[in-house]
Amino acid sequence: MFDYNGSFQFAIAALKRERRYRVFANLERKVGQFPHALWNSPSGKRDVVVWCSNDYLGMGQHPEVIEAMCSAARTMGAGAGGTRNISGTNRALVELEAELADLHGKQAALVFTSGYVSNHTGIATIARLLPDCLILSDALNHNSMIEGVRAADCAKQIWRHNDTQHLEELLSRAAPGRPKLIVFESVYSMDGDVAPLEAICDLAERYNAMTYLDEVHAVGMYGPRGAGIAERDGVMERIDVIEGTLAKAFGALGGYIAGTSDVVDAVRSHAPGFIFTTALPPAVAAAATASIAHLKASGAERAGQRDAVAATKAALRQAGLPVLATETHIVPVMVGDPDLCKQASDLLLDRHGIYIQPINYPTVPRGTERLRITPTPAHDARLIGRLADALIAVWQELDLPLGRDHRPVQQRAQTVAAGG
Amino acid sequence: MFDYNGSFQFAIAALKRERRYRVFANLERKVGQFPHALWNSPSGKRDVVVWCSNDYLGMGQHPEVIEAMCSAARTMGAGAGGTRNISGTNRALVELEAELADLHGKQAALVFTSGYVSNHTGIATIARLLPDCLILSDALNHNSMIEGVRAADCAKQIWRHNDTQHLEELLSRAAPGRPKLIVFESVYSMDGDVAPLEAICDLAERYNAMTYLDEVHAVGMYGPRGAGIAERDGVMERIDVIEGTLAKAFGALGGYIAGTSDVVDAVRSHAPGFIFTTALPPAVAAAATASIAHLKASGAERAGQRDAVAATKAALRQAGLPVLATETHIVPVMVGDPDLCKQASDLLLDRHGIYIQPINYPTVPRGTERLRITPTPAHDARLIGRLADALIAVWQELDLPLGRDHRPVQQRAQTVAAGG
Repeated sequence: MFDYNGSFQFAIAALKRERRYRVFANLERKVGQFPHALWNSPSGKRDVVVWCSNDYLGMGQHPEVIEAMCSAARTMGAGAGGTRNISGTNRALVELEAELADLHGKQAALVFTSGYVSNHTGIATIARLLPDCLILSDALNHNSMIEGVRAADCAKQIWRHNDTQHLEELLSRAAPGRPKLIVFESVYSMDGDVAPLEAICDLAERYNAMTYLDEVHAVGMYGPRGAGIAERDGVMERIDVIEGTLAKAFGALGGYIAGTSDVVDAVRSHAPGFIFTTALPPAVAAAATASIAHLKASGAERAGQRDAVAATKAALRQAGLPVLATETHIVPVMVGDPDLCKQASDLLLDRHGIYIQPINYPTVPRGTERLRITPTPAHDARLIGRLADALIAVWQELDLPLGRDHRPVQQRAQTVAAGG
Repeated sequence: MFDYNGSFQFAIAALKRERRYRVFANLERKVGQFPHALWNSPSGKRDVVVWCSNDYLGMGQHPEVIEAMCSAARTMGAGAGGTRNISGTNRALVELEAELADLHGKQAALVFTSGYVSNHTGIATIARLLPDCLILSDALNHNSMIEGVRAADCAKQIWRHNDTQHLEELLSRAAPGRPKLIVFESVYSMDGDVAPLEAICDLAERYNAMTYLDEVHAVGMYGPRGAGIAERDGVMERIDVIEGTLAKAFGALGGYIAGTSDVVDAVRSHAPGFIFTTALPPAVAAAATASIAHLKASGAERAGQRDAVAATKAALRQAGLPVLATETHIVPVMVGDPDLCKQASDLLLDRHGIYIQPINYPTVPRGTERLRITPTPAHDARLIGRLADALIAVWQELDLPLGRDHRPVQQRAQTVAAGG
């Protein structure tokens, strides 16, 4: 007799042995009080300050966004009621796709239930429609992209992270007439570094490759209208497909791709992860549209975030904390040990009411365990000061080194999948 | 130079040649008026009656559900703000999982962003955790299950649809100690037929196999508390993992699995499609919980659906329309030709204000094209009468055969993926 439950227990026990077992904090965010939230702790409800949210601009609690969600729910209902083809296409979703196409200056956009699904089914479908496609994938791409590349079931080559020389080597070795798909991100979520988009576009044009860019950690936050790093760097029209999320800076749920009408129509017509699933509810689509429209016009949230990020980095550096140098809103504080990382996170929560989830393997490579801090416009000088004080206290308590800026971590392993 | 856009145009042209190109109807449902909706037609807005919604009980417009959604959005915001591990676990989602575990009488439940993702990453993860697992998959399983089986990357065998004799043959041939995972559905969405759950449970126990049951077209609608066909048939506790959706009869968005604490914890800890994606917003979770709680206690919606389904089947049969005999709420009217099926759908919409999407290949096998009708409690006698009249007029206009009950269609091909 095979012991099924025993297998599952065994898998869990292995995670616990390796100190990789995850306990989710049960949070209750409070509209108007973000980044404060209630933590439903084992010993009751406690007020905490969230310092690791991907609601990067706090748009999830913006009155226009909430009102758009409620108004759509009251008039159109709670769900879409079907797949896109079978009664699920709703006005709010069609409007959202038009808004997204406009945001990225593309002919069309297509919404998926998540950014994960966008990448998974989007990359796989595009590659499958290109005969004998060769995928060139950045070594640090997110798990959703890795799974999309795998599902494409075609030849792939991994280029060293952000290394355009290596990318060129691989491009130059491939047959000139062979279709090549370069898949990469703009802002990498765990180290907060940025891809050299212009150089990659140059190479794509020189070697006649197609580009697929994941901007999930950039949309809403970079560029004059919040269209991302490609907009900021003036290369948006040179990227073939831009993929983004509605669930981070836009504060809602869902993902999308934007590109030519032809590529969008082809994915719409062939991607199983798009075709065989219920459409996003009108209320979610309306919330996302309101958020995008607001951030297109308003730069206040982006400015507020930039200021909070700069102040946080300065305060932590001044305290001698091992901050990884980044040019983005992602502020990693390195620990380098899974146990200590978890202990630091627990102490911050228990003693200081500060919630920063430990980031351990497999989200980052072993030895690069960290606290990943994401300041938002709502993190003011007082909160930043309290964060620095708390981190110093925890670092002293755990006897972690305080000193000069941390050196950049080693190149991460190619198999690592970030973001969860 | 490879012509990328040309490849995408070519793929689209092929669909058009095969009459498989899909045009989505842009609908605007109106709370309180369902099944009426506005159709944003090329020539302007028109009132239509939707007869093909998967909001099977109209719960998407239930006042308690909408109020739960709006209330959660107003207090907790529009989005979850992170993955489950990184700040995205919210109180509403934790409550939803408890409600789902209770619904199915299981120790635990786990929510995903969609039913598609539940199956895809759930099946793949469970199978990967079982050493040398053999998957036994029903021939007509949904695309999400087929993709999950594929992603599991282990041995698989396909048993003929609902054929327990064939299943037993395959089970008896496998090594007794080898882990075996039987994956199947209760209600199959396109033919509306039901799996012999008790016989499958008998076999699973006899041959020490694990069972994974997709109840997405049954939850909310069957069983005294709406837990599905397994509840109705009294075998719920004999099924190892029950998978369901929040996006059909429950009127919201998302999917889930329910099972022992161990299997749920193992999937929670290992499934990439769960780990690396933003959590469901509290507003969506709260809407789903309200809907489930309502349907656990109230049988009125199920009774209303049963009555509307019976009346619709009777009216269409009496008119001599080729209704496929089913024991469920799914009422397929067979056409058997993609062009005529599309024409029938277009005529219903244009002339009669009735929206029923044509179901063509690859959703169903070629030659079994159909209109798939799903009566809800809101489809009253007057609407049913108008539907029958309209169908007769269309059948006459297109010179389609009217006569006795249609014979059951041939066994469908194994590669077919239903539901989109």
